[in-house]
Amino acid sequence: MTTRKLVLLRHGQSQWNLDNRFTGWVDVDITEAGRQEAIRAGELMKAEGLKFDCAHTSVLKRAIRTNFTALDVMDQLWIPVHKTWRLNERHYGALQGLDKAETTAKHGEAQVKIWRRSYDVPPPAMDASDAGHPANDPRYAKLDAAALPGTESLATTLVRVLPYWHDQIAPQLKAGQTLLVTAHGNSLRALYKYLNNVSESEILELNIPTAIPLLFELDADLKVKSHRYLGDPEAARRAAEAVANQAKAR
Amino acid sequence: MTTRKLVLLRHGQSQWNLDNRFTGWVDVDITEAGRQEAIRAGELMKAEGLKFDCAHTSVLKRAIRTNFTALDVMDQLWIPVHKTWRLNERHYGALQGLDKAETTAKHGEAQVKIWRRSYDVPPPAMDASDAGHPANDPRYAKLDAAALPGTESLATTLVRVLPYWHDQIAPQLKAGQTLLVTAHGNSLRALYKYLNNVSESEILELNIPTAIPLLFELDADLKVKSHRYLGDPEAARRAAEAVANQAKAR
Repeated sequence: MTTRKLVLLRHGQSQWNLDNRFTGWVDVDITEAGRQEAIRAGELMKAEGLKFDCAHTSVLKRAIRTNFTALDVMDQLWIPVHKTWRLNERHYGALQGLDKAETTAKHGEAQVKIWRRSYDVPPPAMDASDAGHPANDPRYAKLDAAALPGTESLATTLVRVLPYWHDQIAPQLKAGQTLLVTAHGNSLRALYKYLNNVSESEILELNIPTAIPLLFELDADLKVKSHRYLGDPEAARRAAEAVANQAKAR
Repeated sequence: MTTRKLVLLRHGQSQWNLDNRFTGWVDVDITEAGRQEAIRAGELMKAEGLKFDCAHTSVLKRAIRTNFTALDVMDQLWIPVHKTWRLNERHYGALQGLDKAETTAKHGEAQVKIWRRSYDVPPPAMDASDAGHPANDPRYAKLDAAALPGTESLATTLVRVLPYWHDQIAPQLKAGQTLLVTAHGNSLRALYKYLNNVSESEILELNIPTAIPLLFELDADLKVKSHRYLGDPEAARRAAEAVANQAKAR
């Protein structure tokens, strides 16, 4: 039995998803609708019979609460949960906190799509003196400030996420563990790109829906044997489409 | 600045606290009243200005949820949380699941007080073939079955808790971290006995109230400089008294 199981789970709807604002590393919570999504995610994973050995999540509460809520439904609150800045959402630089539609109206949909969906063009950087910069946040105080981004592209997000894959997640999977990774749209796209060997252009078109568990089956060498969303595939497709439409000006 | 801070927090009211049943390692959840207690505990710790570097809890959901709820109120969900069987409640052996008043009526208050409050007399052991025995619970599957108790006294609980103190908690405190330990009446009594060098007879009279943070200040050698319940001392005294009265037949 050499199949290893890994579930990628994007957090449920956050307040700023709802408000259509760029969130990034801002610690915005999930909404009640997001909590309901997380409960449904837990039910889907429970119905699949998944027994996790361990979960990994970011240091942002929308992922932490989604993870807790889903594990609670599965009666698996007792498993180890590791929180890491490396699974955080892509840092959106100086765009963090801005309304997406306003940004689109101001900079144009093309520029916003470049910032949101280009592979390696980061938004304008947040200044290190900004109160919102990670260097000024106690949760990152133990890290070398040089590691902390003031902005990120998907490319630099991937570079930041992958060490965690190689050092923590992959060894556990190779040891036969079944894992849950509850994170964010872009940190999960980074993992998805790596696992499925997706090109830089194709990954730009991939939209991961909120709180629908994406189950990977991997072989002993961690090659992907299969991957699928749990539950109704049509629901997953519609949810991914809703994410794609999110940046379009209202 | 050599003062280290450690908070011991007993979980909020559980369903079986309410039902007056022996709980031990049974994974009973907290009640809504218990959740409100946990929120209040978070408010008290927030008002005290506590910034935790790390939290430790058991693998039982009444402690895990109390810990999560209190940290949530403090906006400190992002800190590392370690879950360990070594902080579990004392295992109550074959008494687990029994109504305390019924047990008292059957065995007499003296015998029940011996089981509950003697230092080294464990209740009758649960059989290893019992579905409720930890050897049959997936959360302990990675442990050597020889480590898993079928019953415990306060003395054997202390022997089981202390390695976690020495290997995990104490080194973090010596490194200057501020810690939260959210656990159970008897695992916390074990720590309290050790920290305050309380005698075997005196510890039997100590009752730790649910969900009132107990703040220890320790010096660089982890000697206790002071300890006190946060909030109203009279409320803590009344709550401890309520615990003491719990086993008396109704």
